[in-house]
This record gives sequence, C-alpha cells and structure tokens, in this order.
Amino acid sequence: MIIFGIDPGIAIVGYGVIEYKGNKFNVIDYGAITTEPIYTFPERLKIVYDELCTLLDKYKPDFVAIEELFFNKNAKTAINVGQARGVQLLAAINRGIEIYEYTPLQVKQGVVGYGKAEKKQVQEMVKVLLNLKKVPKPDDVADALAVAICHAHSGNFRDMFKVK
Amino acid sequence: MIIFGIDPGIAIVGYGVIEYKGNKFNVIDYGAITTEPIYTFPERLKIVYDELCTLLDKYKPDFVAIEELFFNKNAKTAINVGQARGVQLLAAINRGIEIYEYTPLQVKQGVVGYGKAEKKQVQEMVKVLLNLKKVPKPDDVADALAVAICHAHSGNFRDMFKVK
Repeated sequence: MIIFGIDPGIAIVGYGVIEYKGNKFNVIDYGAITTEPIYTFPERLKIVYDELCTLLDKYKPDFVAIEELFFNKNAKTAINVGQARGVQLLAAINRGIEIYEYTPLQVKQGVVGYGKAEKKQVQEMVKVLLNLKKVPKPDDVADALAVAICHAHSGNFRDMFKVK
Repeated sequence: MIIFGIDPGIAIVGYGVIEYKGNKFNVIDYGAITTEPIYTFPERLKIVYDELCTLLDKYKPDFVAIEELFFNKNAKTAINVGQARGVQLLAAINRGIEIYEYTPLQVKQGVVGYGKAEKKQVQEMVKVLLNLKKVPKPDDVADALAVAICHAHSGNFRDMFKVK
C-alpha cells in the first residue's frame, strides 16, 4: 500500500510518501509545500491545495494519513492551520482517497511504541525504519513521514482512525 | 456591485447575495448550504466547496464578504469551523473573487452603526435595509446578509478589510 502522510500547516506543509509491503518500508518521496507571506492567505490556501493535488495525482496513494490538530494557545494560529487543513482534506476527498487522522500522541505510539516518546526519538525511528541517511528537515517533513509510518502500523485498528 | 456574504460553518453555511447600487440594496438570493452528520467530515467539506462554487458561478459576485472567526471556547468546534472556512476561501480564490473579512463587531458597526448592537437589532436592520417581509431564518442566513451589507457600507475603508 502507498501512504501519503501530511503534517498540516500553511507556511510549511510537510509530506511523505511511503510504500508499506510485507512489513517493509520503501520511501517514495518526501518534502514540503511552502507558501511565502508575500501572498494573501487565500492565495496561500490555493497554492497548498494545487500543489497537494499535483502530488496526489503523481503518487496515487491508497491512504492519506494526516495529523490531528491539537488545541493551540494561540487561537489565531489554530484557526489558520485549521483553514489550511480544511483544503488539505478537500484535496484528498476530491481525489477519492481514504483519509485517516492521528493525534501527536498516537503518532508517537505508532512509530516508537509509546506515547511519551521524545520528538528526537520519533525522528530517529523514522530515519531507521525508512533507511535514510539523515533525519529529513525541516521537522514538518519528518512529522509527515512519521504519521505515514503510524498509519502503516495501525493494522487491524485502522478503522479506529478513519476520519469521521 | 454584487456582494456574496458568507457566514462560515460546516453544518450550516449561511449565504446572502445582494446588489448595492447608488446606496440602494437589491436582494438577489439567500439561503444556507447544509451538510448532515451522516457524511464524514471531508465529505461535508466537499459538499460545502462544491455547492459554494456552484453559487459563485451562478451569481458571479464582485466581492465575497465573510465573517472572521473569533476564538471559541470549544477548540474542536473552532478547528472544524476553521477547516470549513478554509474551503470557503478556496472556492472564492479559485473563482478569482476578491475576499473581504469582518469581525462580528465590525458587522454590527457596519450594519447598525454601533458595535454593541444586539443580534436582534442587526437582524431587524437587515430586514429593513433589504426590504424583506421577515427576518430570514436560520440566523446564519441573516448573518450572511449582514456581512454583505457591512461590506457595502465599508466604502472608502474597504481596503482595510481585504483578506491578507
């Protein structure tokens, strides 16, 4: 199965595309969609949506796995990331791809095996599992690969994480 | 000028389309896009996006005026409405329409003339200004018409409210 992981955002949207077959991972692509603040917010939403659609068309994933937003102290940021995540969900549903979501805690659980893992441990595990030479940068890219791995590991529990 | 007002939401998205010409209002259409919880959240985003695009194609407004989200005590609701508002902005920018946003306080200011007006006063003013027999229901529809009127009244200050 091909899994497309997304770390939602507006300035930086991390993505990671992996294949999971016979308990083994194969990295297909990873990177970040970035939008500069010289554009208006709706223009930035359009850039994110269009680039994400292009990537989904290119890799035709079986699943999209996306991080759930947790409550942010900065309401303005939370709303803006929410708005960006909305167009990311729209891109996936418009491509007819099944969408699954995981909280940051579930990602740690799914990648490292316990929910209190440090960010650095998650990143090291991403590197090891995907046989990469270095931890991908920025963090948003490693986070996107982590949520994709988490989805691969969800196995029989997968349906629990389907976006309702 | 034709103004398309939006009261953002996911279960109910109020909209109101008005023409403003020589200080007079002409109502073109108003109503609500509704999505039932039997659909998944991404499906509901798609319904909102598709129906909004259809309405924008039908009425070809010069401006979209949309309410700004204010911080909500319920973070889950705030994030979900944020996600929905994201696809509403995307629909407008994908149609190349200029987008303006107003806080609830600015809407009261722009419709009634002072920011501490009661909801009921705003609704009565919408009825009077648009020459309607009754206040449109649900509230989301009246709110969408109010933000459209607010935009019409913003006059020389319009650029202040352009979405950045």
